Amino acid sequence: MRDVAVLGVGQSEFGKFPERTIAAMGATAARAAITDAGIDASELQAAFGSRVYDATITSQTILKDLGITRIEMVNVENACAGGSTAVRSLYKDIAAGYIDVGIAIGVESMTTSPIAGKLIPPDKDDLDGQLGLTMPVLFALQAQRLMETHGATPEDFARISVKAHDHGALNPMAQYRKQFTVEEVLHSRMIADPITLLQCCPNTDGAAAVVMTSADFARRYTDTPVRIIGSSLTSGGYSFHRADLTNFELGARAASEAYEQAGIGPEDLDVLEIHDAFASEELIHYEDLGLCPRGDAVGLLRSGATALGGRIPVNPSGGLQSLGHPLAASGVRVIGDITNQLRGRCGDQQVPNAQVGLAQMLGGVATGLDAGAASVHILARPMRKDSTCCKN
Amino acid sequence: MRDVAVLGVGQSEFGKFPERTIAAMGATAARAAITDAGIDASELQAAFGSRVYDATITSQTILKDLGITRIEMVNVENACAGGSTAVRSLYKDIAAGYIDVGIAIGVESMTTSPIAGKLIPPDKDDLDGQLGLTMPVLFALQAQRLMETHGATPEDFARISVKAHDHGALNPMAQYRKQFTVEEVLHSRMIADPITLLQCCPNTDGAAAVVMTSADFARRYTDTPVRIIGSSLTSGGYSFHRADLTNFELGARAASEAYEQAGIGPEDLDVLEIHDAFASEELIHYEDLGLCPRGDAVGLLRSGATALGGRIPVNPSGGLQSLGHPLAASGVRVIGDITNQLRGRCGDQQVPNAQVGLAQMLGGVATGLDAGAASVHILARPMRKDSTCCKN
Repeated sequence: MRDVAVLGVGQSEFGKFPERTIAAMGATAARAAITDAGIDASELQAAFGSRVYDATITSQTILKDLGITRIEMVNVENACAGGSTAVRSLYKDIAAGYIDVGIAIGVESMTTSPIAGKLIPPDKDDLDGQLGLTMPVLFALQAQRLMETHGATPEDFARISVKAHDHGALNPMAQYRKQFTVEEVLHSRMIADPITLLQCCPNTDGAAAVVMTSADFARRYTDTPVRIIGSSLTSGGYSFHRADLTNFELGARAASEAYEQAGIGPEDLDVLEIHDAFASEELIHYEDLGLCPRGDAVGLLRSGATALGGRIPVNPSGGLQSLGHPLAASGVRVIGDITNQLRGRCGDQQVPNAQVGLAQMLGGVATGLDAGAASVHILARPMRKDSTCCKN
Repeated sequence: MRDVAVLGVGQSEFGKFPERTIAAMGATAARAAITDAGIDASELQAAFGSRVYDATITSQTILKDLGITRIEMVNVENACAGGSTAVRSLYKDIAAGYIDVGIAIGVESMTTSPIAGKLIPPDKDDLDGQLGLTMPVLFALQAQRLMETHGATPEDFARISVKAHDHGALNPMAQYRKQFTVEEVLHSRMIADPITLLQCCPNTDGAAAVVMTSADFARRYTDTPVRIIGSSLTSGGYSFHRADLTNFELGARAASEAYEQAGIGPEDLDVLEIHDAFASEELIHYEDLGLCPRGDAVGLLRSGATALGGRIPVNPSGGLQSLGHPLAASGVRVIGDITNQLRGRCGDQQVPNAQVGLAQMLGGVATGLDAGAASVHILARPMRKDSTCCKN
């Protein structure tokens, strides 16, 4: 298999824009990624688009206005891991040599989606869903369990939201550039005990795109391409039908597969962008991703290691909490943000001298259908001839 | 790239089954394909599912009940070419060596979809759609044009429906196993002149699945695997915004790409399964697929060559007209039907001594959004040592 590089990244503004079409937001992100890559749009050989709601012909609709047609276009779906699935599909096609250059796009209009203004509508065949097992409830069950098993407190969960908003306040693309105190987070409206409003990701419209190429192609445009050194996608249970609510088994498996391919471990990471639809889940991911031993997530959080300025910053972008969560866009956006970290282009949010980063996303069905997807990508900073930062 | 084989095929009954869930219909098709392949479900290494409406986590939901989890699962969408996109995605992963064995599943519940009982709802940003440019209207415009340019008559279009229903009456899986006369077709309800009700595919619920493997893996189970010798997927305009309404440029391009890979031409084909959502479009595909020179499609039809017993039967299954059209299922179903033709398992619908077959599907957005996908797969009969039926 061939080496694959991320050559350009782009994002539309994240926020509530019911007047903006999928095509318009997607084209904004795609144009930005193509411009950033420095290629001509006519060089693209394939496109992978992702959108959770009304996915029909998404890539084609977005790219038509850029004059991109007559190439292979695939629209993929995997809930919140849909954007990551588009990235991985493109990665596989380039690594296998089917194509040299392509684009992955994630887009969502949550304000005009079928679930706008509603709780996620339960499947009529799904008893759990009909009884009210929605996403906030699932994550609240997990948070309650973390309080029992890990000694986590409501203040810990609030601190994760405070951290996300501290980071997001520095991000010009974020939906909410506002800081909060632990007290403010705890006293915002209760959604599902212990999760309060300010510990939930908002409803967001927006798009993200990445242009990816073979390493050989990338060298025509830059001496220092960011490489994807690990890529995984797997499936598994997502709901509460499992022995231990304090981990996502599919997420841990996705991580170990990506580490194995990359030939590195969590101790080699400098920065992460991960799924934090609800603040409390970040603790679970710390352990599933191996950032600390099982049971030590609360300690890792309290140490400040995962905040900007700490040893291993998590979600310096502001994460889903502050930056926003246009579902399928998020899995592409995390690849873009890690790429920018490794290129040293993140301004006030920059993790100094970041060399290796990880982008993770997982999603699925909260209810008794209990089915999900998890994806991990590991990216490495431009390699120079004397560099030995990674084993592979 | 490695040779890829279709090892097992399966289908659920096609019809109107609003009480059957996506999971149940999909599992029926998947179980049938796994049984037909002779493998154990635990051998599957990846799954690609397709569903146009509400695609979220489709593969995972279907396969959970078969005990299949913890593998890579991707859900793809490309309108009526979605099922073909799932097949091609699986094909690419096997050919590249990422996996040895996987399953592609297409499923749709049209009777419970968001468009059930409605014309396809126009995109609010799409003027053409708001003015009524629905699928039947688009295909009626094309049919009118064929009458001007090709000398096609309403009787010709009706004859295609009669042929489809003659074939489908032989198919135990078909939604409508009923024969009609040209007069009956012409006097059924007018939908969009010259297209009458019996020239439209019905609304259908159902699923189809195929198990595909590397050629080496297949040889553990059979001496005579059916091989995929050509696979293409491309994008392009689908609506009336084009110079010539009497072809689908994207469909012709998909065909020539697949022929080139297979190293054969249309003259080498013995049987085809293609998209005939409306009877009249079959004439367009005859020419786009190279079955006859441009302008000669009506003559090819009238010669009887494309009926069972003719030189090059098209849609011996009954096609979308008679068998039914559960959107994303159709692209997988055509692969299954061609596989069965090449294995000589089609009973009364069998094309004698079929050695090479073609499965085609295209779909998109009828309206001014004008974006579509087309896919062609070419399959070849089990090769024996002394066989020279194909160049590759």
